[in-house]
Amino acid sequence: MNIGTYSYEEYVQLVISFHGAAAPGLLIGGFIVDMALNNLPEGEFFDAICETPVCLPDSVQLLTPCTIGNGWLTIFNFGKFAVTLYDKKSGDGIRVYLDMEKLKNWSEVNSWFLKLKTKKEQDHDLLMSQIKEAGYSMLSMQKVRVVPDQVTRKKMGPTAICPVCHEAYPVNHGDKCRNCNGESPYI
Amino acid sequence: MNIGTYSYEEYVQLVISFHGAAAPGLLIGGFIVDMALNNLPEGEFFDAICETPVCLPDSVQLLTPCTIGNGWLTIFNFGKFAVTLYDKKSGDGIRVYLDMEKLKNWSEVNSWFLKLKTKKEQDHDLLMSQIKEAGYSMLSMQKVRVVPDQVTRKKMGPTAICPVCHEAYPVNHGDKCRNCNGESPYI
Repeated sequence: MNIGTYSYEEYVQLVISFHGAAAPGLLIGGFIVDMALNNLPEGEFFDAICETPVCLPDSVQLLTPCTIGNGWLTIFNFGKFAVTLYDKKSGDGIRVYLDMEKLKNWSEVNSWFLKLKTKKEQDHDLLMSQIKEAGYSMLSMQKVRVVPDQVTRKKMGPTAICPVCHEAYPVNHGDKCRNCNGESPYI
Repeated sequence: MNIGTYSYEEYVQLVISFHGAAAPGLLIGGFIVDMALNNLPEGEFFDAICETPVCLPDSVQLLTPCTIGNGWLTIFNFGKFAVTLYDKKSGDGIRVYLDMEKLKNWSEVNSWFLKLKTKKEQDHDLLMSQIKEAGYSMLSMQKVRVVPDQVTRKKMGPTAICPVCHEAYPVNHGDKCRNCNGESPYI
């Protein structure tokens, strides 16, 4: 059983090193991304969509060339455990998602995902072994067509120097940078 | 000269393997994150803020435990080349940014960053060697205090099954999932 170009055990180690822990979501995410990679549509270059910011984007970043920094990965805050890989040019893509019907066959994964048990009530070893055993059998896939305009990162455009902080910022943000315009996360 | 726990050359290889290319922004980003790591405030755990989604988040993900999937990295779309590492508990942080005054000493980096030359006019080798030579000398830092509420990822809360697509989604998104509610990036 491989996840991308890794053995399952290698992938688990990679997850721990990048993400900080062998999070169940990233292990399921490994199967999701691997299934999408194995069913890629025709095309030379593909981009990725992840329908949740929680856990799953790290599986995409570890197993595909798509990262948040290079812009080939777009994250939607839909709270859905699904990844789409699609051809940049045609928009044709394959979407792989956690199938709630199939998940019922894996009691501990099901109750973990749907938060039916408290963390204390969960059986961690059973959860981990069920994820590994279940693999692709928790997942389904569908063909989709992506609207490129909704996912392509807009060009930043010309840059100016903010008159307040004297740092560079995108001119199209206004007469000063967003940080100096009250959107700052700093006191 | 080290970047995090890597030699500069090792870091360049890591960038190519993760990000797809030795992007100038990620090389500068290496110095930014390394400078922040070397000047961390007191505290046991730190989180990261990146003030642009372009390139720089990948430097944070490669050099710190903070990733987009584990939620310890928050990205603001300010178009600013700055990273803050801050203590989760106190909010005390160190912000490192590309200093426009200092950047003037590095002509090719300056004209690349401010887009004063077309890609064809750029001298790629000079750009790369200036980045390596400049290192921390293009950067400045400041102490900041982060407002935790603005950066802490909200809990997803209880999950329901969407009556349209039958996939799980966060109840607080409404009576169906955002995907089925017309926000889908798919046709």
